[in-house]
Amino acid sequence: MRLNNPPVNTLSLEFLTELVISLEKLENDKSFRGVILTSDRPGVFSSGLDLTEMCGRSPAHYAEYWKAVQELWLRFYQCSLVLVAAINGACPAGGCLMALTSDHRVLADNPKYSIGLNETLLGIVAPFWFKDTLVNTIGHRAAERALQLGLLFPPAQALQVGIVDQVVPEEQVQSVALSAIAQWMAIPDHARQLTKAMMRKATASRLITHREDDVQNFVSFISRDSIQKSLQLYLERLKQKKG
Amino acid sequence: MRLNNPPVNTLSLEFLTELVISLEKLENDKSFRGVILTSDRPGVFSSGLDLTEMCGRSPAHYAEYWKAVQELWLRFYQCSLVLVAAINGACPAGGCLMALTSDHRVLADNPKYSIGLNETLLGIVAPFWFKDTLVNTIGHRAAERALQLGLLFPPAQALQVGIVDQVVPEEQVQSVALSAIAQWMAIPDHARQLTKAMMRKATASRLITHREDDVQNFVSFISRDSIQKSLQLYLERLKQKKG
Amino acid sequence: MRLNNPPVNTLSLEFLTELVISLEKLENDKSFRGVILTSDRPGVFSSGLDLTEMCGRSPAHYAEYWKAVQELWLRFYQCSLVLVAAINGACPAGGCLMALTSDHRVLADNPKYSIGLNETLLGIVAPFWFKDTLVNTIGHRAAERALQLGLLFPPAQALQVGIVDQVVPEEQVQSVALSAIAQWMAIPDHARQLTKAMMRKATASRLITHREDDVQNFVSFISRDSIQKSLQLYLERLKQKKG
Repeated sequence: MRLNNPPVNTLSLEFLTELVISLEKLENDKSFRGVILTSDRPGVFSSGLDLTEMCGRSPAHYAEYWKAVQELWLRFYQCSLVLVAAINGACPAGGCLMALTSDHRVLADNPKYSIGLNETLLGIVAPFWFKDTLVNTIGHRAAERALQLGLLFPPAQALQVGIVDQVVPEEQVQSVALSAIAQWMAIPDHARQLTKAMMRKATASRLITHREDDVQNFVSFISRDSIQKSLQLYLERLKQKKG
Repeated sequence: MRLNNPPVNTLSLEFLTELVISLEKLENDKSFRGVILTSDRPGVFSSGLDLTEMCGRSPAHYAEYWKAVQELWLRFYQCSLVLVAAINGACPAGGCLMALTSDHRVLADNPKYSIGLNETLLGIVAPFWFKDTLVNTIGHRAAERALQLGLLFPPAQALQVGIVDQVVPEEQVQSVALSAIAQWMAIPDHARQLTKAMMRKATASRLITHREDDVQNFVSFISRDSIQKSLQLYLERLKQKKG
Repeated sequence: MRLNNPPVNTLSLEFLTELVISLEKLENDKSFRGVILTSDRPGVFSSGLDLTEMCGRSPAHYAEYWKAVQELWLRFYQCSLVLVAAINGACPAGGCLMALTSDHRVLADNPKYSIGLNETLLGIVAPFWFKDTLVNTIGHRAAERALQLGLLFPPAQALQVGIVDQVVPEEQVQSVALSAIAQWMAIPDHARQLTKAMMRKATASRLITHREDDVQNFVSFISRDSIQKSLQLYLERLKQKKG
């Protein structure tokens, strides 16, 4: 699955929906047992959630958007296929979340390709299920530090903290990801799937149980004047940077 | 306590029952404060659960066997004595589970002596309490990977991932285990026991609460035609290997 | 905040109350966004709980004292300010607990300055919320081992197990702590505070929910003859050492 939403694979409402439908199709097609998730956009795996979907819109739109983000995570985190992330570009925030849903993460060794949940730097807060996914991956203390400081880990640090499983030269990312997925697909599917479900069920259930509350929390948080203002400022600075 | 159920310390129904009774006796004998768990069979700590108890038998037998496996874990994991595993041989699946119930694990540095929960390789699934025990020992992410891939860690990797506490030359396993148990027994018993119970209570309670469901799950899973067929195939291959 | 309760910053009932009030004042004073916690007593960060408050007193006194210990932890662990511990001395038991409530821990590289929850060595047991705080910091397995053995980690080991974040030459502890707090204060306050609360809420709630039970447990445990005797012995030995 090659992510391709120019310019930087931002997770717009439309793109989120496409991703969920694509994964669903692959899961239902019995000829597929695994998926490599990688980017077709040079230098960026995914820039994460789409701030334009969270800024200057209606509460109903915020709610619709957030449900789509939840749906992406629920589908990918609980995907019965083997999911390997071949991270061939920068991987902040929502991009990192997608990578964290994989079974195995290979990161290209390029100092520009950092990975992390850097929400606090924008003045926003990762929801509890982003947090749970990170805690499951790097442990409680490292997650506490990373989430509060909004840390983006460059490759060597990413490997050390365990947010990725391998760091390899950029030109080898795809071939190493292929070797990794072969290792995972060598396991009897049924046993692997049941084990994966067992490992992730409690975490997924926490969101499923509180899904509506989580939407309400997001809508009321993102609708605040102070948050809207800081997002607008951030978006304007981004535009100036590009312009 | 020297494991001795020829040829490879397979955890048959009878051997499980013996182990539980032996440990109970040691707990009730006030002259004992700690136990070293090791093998009298060359090259094997324990080969794990007995597949012949899970194959071609009645549902009632499967249920009886599974209750005995639960009982072993509950007794050993909550044992008030200091438990040190001197792992002087291969330690897969149920053998690994037993080792994981210890307070301290010393592994002989022999590349043939790997340790891990490799159930998925046989097409079966470790139950949630095997999983909980492994997560408590090596963390969520390492456990997710190890359980899905059915990893058997050779000594250096076992030490690195934390599934054992020490790797030492084979001829020193017993003496190092003795030093370790001396360190643990130097702690006031009552305070150590209360602390151990506090650390392990939540995990043990999860099984105690769902014990009957867990038996039913096992019986219905193991009774499936597909599982029975793959276990039969595996057992036949084992026989041919030996023959 | 400079700890100064001669000779060794023992957490007496009075000192606990002072600490809580001081922190409360700083939280309410909007000109403060962060606090460095360090010691004014040479060689000791804090010697921990005050055994004289737990020995030869009335059950009502034990209950009052324990409530104050709970209050300290609840306030410090859930503090909305950035809290950095500049650990410039020995840091056992209750001193370690205080340090563990911080967002970042810097330890002076002096072999005499060890840190850990060594309660079992005195024949007593750390309560579940000490345990939860340690598990959140160093993980379940390391906490299980450290708590049962009452381990006091010297600097290099403390860094390796993750009970502190940095070990630096003694004369640099304060300046490194200042750099660390600057890094934490660079994050938008509101987002950082919400993230911190999200990370720590479940752990704090466990005590809040069981606060009264926890007091009763402590009072009945500490009132036992055997515990009182071993505390008296320990205190007498301490006096002789000093005398």
